[in-house]
Amino acid sequence: MTIRAGLDYRSAGVDIDAGAEAVRRIRDLARGTFTPGVLSEIGSFGGLFQPDLTGLTDPVLVSSADGVGTKLKVAFLAGRHDTVGCDLVNHCVNDILVQGATPLFFLDYLATGRLSPDVIEAVVRGIAAACTENRCALLGGETAEMPGFYADGEYDLAGFVVGIADRDRLIDGRGIRPGDPVIGLPSTGLHTNGYSLARRIVFDTLGLAVDSAPEGLDGRVGEVLLRPHRSYLPLVSLLLTEGAGGVRAMAHITGGGLTDNLPRVLPPGIAVEIDTRAWTPPPVFTFLQRHGGLTDAEAFRTFNMGIGLVIICAPDRRGTLLAACRRHGEPGAAVIGRVTTGDGTVRYG
Amino acid sequence: MTIRAGLDYRSAGVDIDAGAEAVRRIRDLARGTFTPGVLSEIGSFGGLFQPDLTGLTDPVLVSSADGVGTKLKVAFLAGRHDTVGCDLVNHCVNDILVQGATPLFFLDYLATGRLSPDVIEAVVRGIAAACTENRCALLGGETAEMPGFYADGEYDLAGFVVGIADRDRLIDGRGIRPGDPVIGLPSTGLHTNGYSLARRIVFDTLGLAVDSAPEGLDGRVGEVLLRPHRSYLPLVSLLLTEGAGGVRAMAHITGGGLTDNLPRVLPPGIAVEIDTRAWTPPPVFTFLQRHGGLTDAEAFRTFNMGIGLVIICAPDRRGTLLAACRRHGEPGAAVIGRVTTGDGTVRYG
Repeated sequence: MTIRAGLDYRSAGVDIDAGAEAVRRIRDLARGTFTPGVLSEIGSFGGLFQPDLTGLTDPVLVSSADGVGTKLKVAFLAGRHDTVGCDLVNHCVNDILVQGATPLFFLDYLATGRLSPDVIEAVVRGIAAACTENRCALLGGETAEMPGFYADGEYDLAGFVVGIADRDRLIDGRGIRPGDPVIGLPSTGLHTNGYSLARRIVFDTLGLAVDSAPEGLDGRVGEVLLRPHRSYLPLVSLLLTEGAGGVRAMAHITGGGLTDNLPRVLPPGIAVEIDTRAWTPPPVFTFLQRHGGLTDAEAFRTFNMGIGLVIICAPDRRGTLLAACRRHGEPGAAVIGRVTTGDGTVRYG
Repeated sequence: MTIRAGLDYRSAGVDIDAGAEAVRRIRDLARGTFTPGVLSEIGSFGGLFQPDLTGLTDPVLVSSADGVGTKLKVAFLAGRHDTVGCDLVNHCVNDILVQGATPLFFLDYLATGRLSPDVIEAVVRGIAAACTENRCALLGGETAEMPGFYADGEYDLAGFVVGIADRDRLIDGRGIRPGDPVIGLPSTGLHTNGYSLARRIVFDTLGLAVDSAPEGLDGRVGEVLLRPHRSYLPLVSLLLTEGAGGVRAMAHITGGGLTDNLPRVLPPGIAVEIDTRAWTPPPVFTFLQRHGGLTDAEAFRTFNMGIGLVIICAPDRRGTLLAACRRHGEPGAAVIGRVTTGDGTVRYG
């Protein structure tokens, strides 16, 4: 297209050609994630996926949408854009994993003020790497250039996953009974929640920079705060295979911490008691709580406090599950509480 | 939770309680869209959907992610938040419709600087209304409060749809032959594309306000620019039933206009000639082209120019399809061009 004197779309802040360049790079990255179910190329109107229904008697689709929240601001400060894509995918995958589903495909939404093909490529590289690790196809997505919406060099990022499970193998908490043990799996850090508060404490109150290495933190600020949200899929799929039948509920500990996420899987008349001495939160949590002057109640309702995923199981499966965790390289798994009768809340002791 | 002197999440700009209020309202709206396949409540980690596979021999999932782009800025200026949700859903539904798929469920991502339950409710009301019209369940979503990302009263919005089709009924353009007629279905206006340029012309160059009613426009600025992106599902599903076998390709005319979207469905060695005298673009396009000093090439690569969806069919189905359009209340459907041999481009005559 010839650019002439009149207003055109480029002068209005939208660069269709930079968009095309970004699409080419995204297409190559996405192709690398394709699994046998993918029937389409990136760039078709809709992505086509043919699920393998072999062995499923009553297939149910399980789907979740998520974002990365203001962890993105840390990525902007650090100029590092390849970790947030992992955060996004793993967050979504964990959300459907706790209901017993295996991911099939993923789509992303990436919105920027002005397209930088390099930044977009870094973000999508992270998304694609995590999709590959989770054996989940990056089936499509939308890259939007929205002048006036985002500051230069900034973007927002959302993701959407679709998985599948057999209906009678869905995990929904219905089988929970008082006395069931509550097992916590370690998080790698903040995962993707609590960043508005964490950033205020670290950057505003303490005046630290991304390359600061303050006492009490196990690394530089940027590195610690950008540690990727881990995927529990590899471990949990092994646990479900080996401990089949004993897992009664799982909760992904996201925004709202243990306090708000455990109640999401509790049936009526049930509560949970958490023993906070059962594990040691990683340094970042102690650091944030001390420098932010946060009560335990505030900290446990904002951060995951070192527990990224919770499993509630039948009492007689506790040993099997913990042994399986150790055998599969997760020695930090621990019983962190127990189920009681109650009003659907989480109490800390 | 008691708020005390230390930093808490509310003082960091995140209001968990306002979030909970928004979630309650969203839950009620979403429930109204539930179809028999929905097995979960809003608020579970993943949404559960059991597709009805009756009559499908080889089910394929078709999925798309989209946003509304800077049309949102017009909604902010007009203080009207119930139309952008329709735009979002209908855009996504059309994207999978052109491949022959029927929508099953939808998820949204809504990110704001500061949660306003009223604005969120208006946006989700629009989403839910469009989901109901498209018989598509609003299965879940994410509402993110991201202080420092979005200006007060502003938000971004993305959507994800999953639909289903039998593999041998997918529509993919493979059957296109030179000589095939190209049928255009009318758009209601800009739909969701070209808003960065349209806003620059209308608000910056011309200095108009949302309630201006300038000569040459068929309504007030805000009303014309916010006309919802229409869903072609009701009409096209009737056409596919009645003209079964004759539809060789469909293209949703989004960002990039006819120029960039038609090539997405053309097989190698094929091009399209469009006769721009075959229809009259609605006033908004003439208005924007004149006041923006846009060449035809620029206008047709930025705006849909009055054609929201294109059908390429076998020559002998042309009469049947046009008659079916008229019978189903779409008298504006017209042959707007024809398929030729060529290099995958769109030429205008």
